[in-house]
Amino acid sequence: MAQARSRVVIIGAGFGGLSTAKALAGATVDVLLIDQRNHHLFQPLLYQVATASLSPADIAAPVRSLLSDQKNVSVILGKVTGIDSAARTVAVDNGVHAENIHYDYLVVATGARHAYFGKDHWESFAPGLKTIEDATAIRHRLLMAFELAEMATDTVERDRMLTMVIIGGGPTGVEMAGSIAELARAALAKDFRHIDPRKAKVLLVEAGPRLLASFPEDLSAAAVRSLQRLGVEVRLNARVNDCDAGGVVIGDQRVRAGTIIWAAGVQASPAAAWLNVEADRAGRVKVAPDYSVPGYDNVFVIGDTATLTDTRGAVVPGVGPAAKQAGKYVARVISARLRGEASPPPFTYKNYGNLATIGRRAAVVDFGWIKLRGPLAWWLWGFAHIFFLIDFRNRVVVAFTWLWSFLTYKRGARLITGPPPPNAKA
Amino acid sequence: MAQARSRVVIIGAGFGGLSTAKALAGATVDVLLIDQRNHHLFQPLLYQVATASLSPADIAAPVRSLLSDQKNVSVILGKVTGIDSAARTVAVDNGVHAENIHYDYLVVATGARHAYFGKDHWESFAPGLKTIEDATAIRHRLLMAFELAEMATDTVERDRMLTMVIIGGGPTGVEMAGSIAELARAALAKDFRHIDPRKAKVLLVEAGPRLLASFPEDLSAAAVRSLQRLGVEVRLNARVNDCDAGGVVIGDQRVRAGTIIWAAGVQASPAAAWLNVEADRAGRVKVAPDYSVPGYDNVFVIGDTATLTDTRGAVVPGVGPAAKQAGKYVARVISARLRGEASPPPFTYKNYGNLATIGRRAAVVDFGWIKLRGPLAWWLWGFAHIFFLIDFRNRVVVAFTWLWSFLTYKRGARLITGPPPPNAKA
Repeated sequence: MAQARSRVVIIGAGFGGLSTAKALAGATVDVLLIDQRNHHLFQPLLYQVATASLSPADIAAPVRSLLSDQKNVSVILGKVTGIDSAARTVAVDNGVHAENIHYDYLVVATGARHAYFGKDHWESFAPGLKTIEDATAIRHRLLMAFELAEMATDTVERDRMLTMVIIGGGPTGVEMAGSIAELARAALAKDFRHIDPRKAKVLLVEAGPRLLASFPEDLSAAAVRSLQRLGVEVRLNARVNDCDAGGVVIGDQRVRAGTIIWAAGVQASPAAAWLNVEADRAGRVKVAPDYSVPGYDNVFVIGDTATLTDTRGAVVPGVGPAAKQAGKYVARVISARLRGEASPPPFTYKNYGNLATIGRRAAVVDFGWIKLRGPLAWWLWGFAHIFFLIDFRNRVVVAFTWLWSFLTYKRGARLITGPPPPNAKA
Repeated sequence: MAQARSRVVIIGAGFGGLSTAKALAGATVDVLLIDQRNHHLFQPLLYQVATASLSPADIAAPVRSLLSDQKNVSVILGKVTGIDSAARTVAVDNGVHAENIHYDYLVVATGARHAYFGKDHWESFAPGLKTIEDATAIRHRLLMAFELAEMATDTVERDRMLTMVIIGGGPTGVEMAGSIAELARAALAKDFRHIDPRKAKVLLVEAGPRLLASFPEDLSAAAVRSLQRLGVEVRLNARVNDCDAGGVVIGDQRVRAGTIIWAAGVQASPAAAWLNVEADRAGRVKVAPDYSVPGYDNVFVIGDTATLTDTRGAVVPGVGPAAKQAGKYVARVISARLRGEASPPPFTYKNYGNLATIGRRAAVVDFGWIKLRGPLAWWLWGFAHIFFLIDFRNRVVVAFTWLWSFLTYKRGARLITGPPPPNAKA
């Protein structure tokens, strides 16, 4: 009898996929959640792993553990290599053996990677931030730059090592720049003998006319002022024309830098290619108002892999809360179909607010009906992130770690681990 | 004037080197501490990182940060490639440039690596546990074995993946075996759908006649009973004759295993070769009663890199407390020489106790005057380790993490990260 139940296959255990699986808890259906990683990652705090504030395990939790009590869900660790929408199967490879998994309903929630706009060779010089390995590799580069500056025998090389360039002025770039500036000015300040880490130069480069383009203009301006107070040099309307092991070219100016971080663009995962359907320039599948893929009413694409203009005419943004809402919505659509009921009305995104933090005690918050900046915004940002962290243990550990850092100015995860980055030697 | 001060170069920021540096705080001398890693590692808890209980940053702290207030110490991140005892220089390479550093006094505290008794090719199949990368690589293998068992299509492969062999019945092997058994029986128990992790087979193999050879016999017997209660199969007088990607050969019996962990032997770092002096079979330098190297009264070797029979006729053991005591002692010897005073009396090791833990609520403790086992020993073990952890933040985070694990049976650091291990595919 159990064999006759329909099967929902979900690809991706990020905010979208996980919320779909959870929202199907009550449905009479077998749910199969596939991810290439064993952990769900709380991506909004990933930059804090990259800047030595938090440990990977503080912002990640095993997918199996999050769903262990939900008996209708099985978790598969493996990489999806393709979808056969005619045969209704997903091809999964776990490195040891490959398998084709049948689905009745398919939810694709595979997210996005950073993109280099055709300059893929920049990646080794200017890594982006999407996975735990990305974060620990950036941490390695960043901390190693100060070590190499301390050991440098000529001043040109020393200055280069003490120059950090962050490309891209969205939330990740802004938060990263603020955090790096504080790392240099507070956490590392007293730890070296030949260099003064406080003299490190942190450059935030944005091609557009303002930072945080998705926020109101006055909050963008507030973010610039907060960053400048931390000593970050903000360059707007500035285009990066080249990246190599020695630095970057901004406009036509060469800037020698020991660390370059990419926060400028993302490209959706290859769902559109798997499904052979239309995508926008960033690779996102153009979905119907119920998140189904045109032509396949049993296939849904959600989160950063999809693009949708909702019933109010607003483009649903590529943020965690939107992916969660889409996951819950799609679970309702599938549940209704399974029960033979009418579909719920088309999806409407509820924007509960937009937050970004800039170092200690400064943040910008946009709730739509109210805009905040400064210390109050910062505390709100902190509480919101603690609240939405994925499980109890993480909340306590992160709250304590933040409190400790706040009081001592130290960073608890200042570890140089893993293989050396490719551009340590320029 | 500062140029005229003597310089003490310390190689290694483990228990021995760090305690030497700290004990020289009051001395009128420039101290230079060299390590190839940026962090001091609390090695006694490294097995808990390998078994997904703790995060790397919980048991490590940046060396610079630990010594930032001690103005007479500089820290150098780099790999020592040789010592020229005639010229009194240490060759250091940080990957970008190399340097020869002059010393007036030299303290070598470079520890030990695991050793394979001439079977170096076993290392890729049976990794040992000395660094953070070792620990996260073992964690990867261990967690991945359960994933591969869950996905396995034939029962032989499934059983292989659910078999873990730990080679070596010293404290590391015993603690690792207990922790793996509990991982399988408690933390993972409910998280899989096709396998029952509680049926995982954990095998602890010891070539000698008993576990924990450095403890009294009745505590060794207690350790066997505690492990058996956790479901560990203990094999004494059992020799491992081969290791490969598919398993091990114990005596003449082939055991198919998905995870093999090496805890059987160590080899001192190459200090003896650098100094061109006599070493024992494990590569440890035979030092004089004041830890100086025969023939070089300004060169000292301490910790796991040295072997010494103290004034009471006891061989100083290769444990953290002994290395710390040696570090403090050598700092006193050097301080006395700098002041032109008489040397302190020869070194005597003070054994404050010997502890090992076996899963939840069981441990063995040998204080010499009293022996303990069971729950009381376990609590003592926990408090002692929290107390000796290196800084305040780590103590609080580890204490909370242990409490949380104790109450929930969960493991907070269950992350599969980094490159796949070489023997995932047998």
